[in-house]
Amino acid sequence: MTKYKLTYFNFVALGEPIRFLLSYGGVDFEDNRIEWKDWPEIKPTTPLHQVPILQIDNEVLYQTIPICRYLGAKFNLTGADDFENYKLDNCVQTITDLRMKIEMVAWDKSSPQNFIDEKRAELLNKTIPFYLENLEKIAVKSGSGYLASSKFSWADLYFVPMIEYMNFMMKTNLLEEYENLKKVYENVMKIESIKNYVAKRPTQGN
Amino acid sequence: MTKYKLTYFNFVALGEPIRFLLSYGGVDFEDNRIEWKDWPEIKPTTPLHQVPILQIDNEVLYQTIPICRYLGAKFNLTGADDFENYKLDNCVQTITDLRMKIEMVAWDKSSPQNFIDEKRAELLNKTIPFYLENLEKIAVKSGSGYLASSKFSWADLYFVPMIEYMNFMMKTNLLEEYENLKKVYENVMKIESIKNYVAKRPTQGN
Repeated sequence: MTKYKLTYFNFVALGEPIRFLLSYGGVDFEDNRIEWKDWPEIKPTTPLHQVPILQIDNEVLYQTIPICRYLGAKFNLTGADDFENYKLDNCVQTITDLRMKIEMVAWDKSSPQNFIDEKRAELLNKTIPFYLENLEKIAVKSGSGYLASSKFSWADLYFVPMIEYMNFMMKTNLLEEYENLKKVYENVMKIESIKNYVAKRPTQGN
Repeated sequence: MTKYKLTYFNFVALGEPIRFLLSYGGVDFEDNRIEWKDWPEIKPTTPLHQVPILQIDNEVLYQTIPICRYLGAKFNLTGADDFENYKLDNCVQTITDLRMKIEMVAWDKSSPQNFIDEKRAELLNKTIPFYLENLEKIAVKSGSGYLASSKFSWADLYFVPMIEYMNFMMKTNLLEEYENLKKVYENVMKIESIKNYVAKRPTQGN
């Protein structure tokens, strides 16, 4: 039997879409949640000195989005055709762009507080609505209750934990005003395997 | 006949892998090279206020990597199986990570010169070798003369123009010491359609 081992911090963020995908796929994976204090020792053993990494038997996979796309293909969660696959990729990239913009502010430990406050306000009033309106329009167009394709896809399983992570960083519910994105979120959270995983996941460090 | 129109600056960077792919695919595309002075007017007409965008008949595609993967699928430049596709995605992501690290220094117009010099030295002595050694190992393992798969792929057509762009930013030939990556570069540049495109592309603003 194929052995899966995911190594990441005890945290949602980049590890969580992989956990969602493995849970959806019904894979009994080892969820190796490492502590910050152990990171200096683990770091040089990873290919790019970063996590998540996913070990599948003897192969070491790294880079979150490529891992997610691979698992998506494995679990039949791709789009119906090449153009739908483009639309999924496009949404995943757009979510990632937004996530990185938020991280730059949320994890900024060196700038003065008034600069950070200004940047947070800009995120809330301008950047986040701009990106989420783009995604909301795509969800309206798909009309499926899922993000970008005519059926449920790996992009949905990427979207939901990233929203959780961004909500955590911004300390608010970002989807409040986006009816269609909210529906995608709810539809994913309704899936039995995801519901079961979410019910039993550790709550600390969300 | 399907109409393709690529809109980007008169510059290599993010537009160039799309130009390489369209050239390889034998597509007679409109290469809409915009001037900086026209950008403020064009910007709000694009979905995420950024270029490149690729119009295919009435569809507007944006986000460079998703566009490249889509064209790769269209022109039969994907991997032999899901795992090879993962390896291509992984390389493309790693190249992108490196490119963004270089851009942060190369386009930094506000930091003091000694800070920028220090960061450039760190890139040259540490960051760039670290990433390129990772990619070199992958190219050695593929053993095909191409980046990550058993045959020529869209990742190769992404890799070469990104190297050109990073060479431009770092003002040096980054591949000098990487025999296998150099071979990938040369193999791509030998392809008839790429050779023809490169011979006739505008040289300014590389």
